[in-house]
Amino acid sequence: METASDSARSDAARNRERLLEAARRLVVEHGPEHVTMREVAAEAGVGKGTLFRRFGDRDGLLLALLDDAEADFLEAYTAGPPPLGPGAPAPERLVTFGQALIQRTVTEGDLGSALARELLPGHRNDSGAGTAFRAHVAGLLRESGVEADHELLALVLLSSVSFETLDHLRGRGVSEERLHGVWADLVRRVTHVA
Amino acid sequence: METASDSARSDAARNRERLLEAARRLVVEHGPEHVTMREVAAEAGVGKGTLFRRFGDRDGLLLALLDDAEADFLEAYTAGPPPLGPGAPAPERLVTFGQALIQRTVTEGDLGSALARELLPGHRNDSGAGTAFRAHVAGLLRESGVEADHELLALVLLSSVSFETLDHLRGRGVSEERLHGVWADLVRRVTHVA
Repeated sequence: METASDSARSDAARNRERLLEAARRLVVEHGPEHVTMREVAAEAGVGKGTLFRRFGDRDGLLLALLDDAEADFLEAYTAGPPPLGPGAPAPERLVTFGQALIQRTVTEGDLGSALARELLPGHRNDSGAGTAFRAHVAGLLRESGVEADHELLALVLLSSVSFETLDHLRGRGVSEERLHGVWADLVRRVTHVA
Repeated sequence: METASDSARSDAARNRERLLEAARRLVVEHGPEHVTMREVAAEAGVGKGTLFRRFGDRDGLLLALLDDAEADFLEAYTAGPPPLGPGAPAPERLVTFGQALIQRTVTEGDLGSALARELLPGHRNDSGAGTAFRAHVAGLLRESGVEADHELLALVLLSSVSFETLDHLRGRGVSEERLHGVWADLVRRVTHVA
């Protein structure tokens, strides 16, 4: 039986979902630069105050959208079929994971990438998705038997497929295929356990 | 014997040096954000038009200052004593080179780093210094006997010691010592020729 406070909680959850839904529509139809508190409030038919109370600020709203948008990818690399998901050797999973990131970054219209780009780099790195990426890479390095400063090596490897790095390389005319190749090469060298 | 046109050329060189000197004074005394065309013109006692004719725009002036500021470092890694300069094994030179970059980036008051930070990332990467860094790393990878896409691997390795990456890592409280360690580890793994 639903109590009064359960019902208040599920009202709050429904309202939150309605606000995120409005924001998502704006991103998909007009691009993430249209996620402004003013435009989202208008789209959802609420006052700006409601949005600020719920999400703190624009970056807070973007972070909530991002975690939502990243849920499928998170599911795929933690519990989906190999070689992205469990079941393949750790080095192979690491190759596949980075290549998936590269592919998502260079693909126009990837919602998670578009949202992440709109965030301040500090917020992006500390987002749920950013934290999960680092933990995943560090875990696969450990599982590969690499003896290293796993957390820091994970950060460094991920910097080679960051937006900044990939935008720079794409700007120099490097093809997606070459990017996939150099990532695979780097991972194989790093995880080569002598 | 000096001809009229030799003398015009050396006047031009002297004037250029005088403008760079004024800009350098501003950077050293007040920081690179004071390299504005207005402030440099005032410091050098010339009109802004002279500056624009000579350097194109502010980034052009910063690039000229940067190449100048980087001359000593370039000399050190191409012709100075080992292990930064020639004479040490290529992997060891690569370790030392990256650690020198890390040290310069985290040191306050390094003129080249301060100038490079003021440039747009695209201009920074295409500067004389940026181009020379990539060529140096690619050359050392080749000399180490690594069979790879040397140019791209060089770019990727350098991304792990870029301002963006190092600022991010420092912001997470990673010590300079740990940064030196992970770079050395990465280079050893990459250049490990089985």
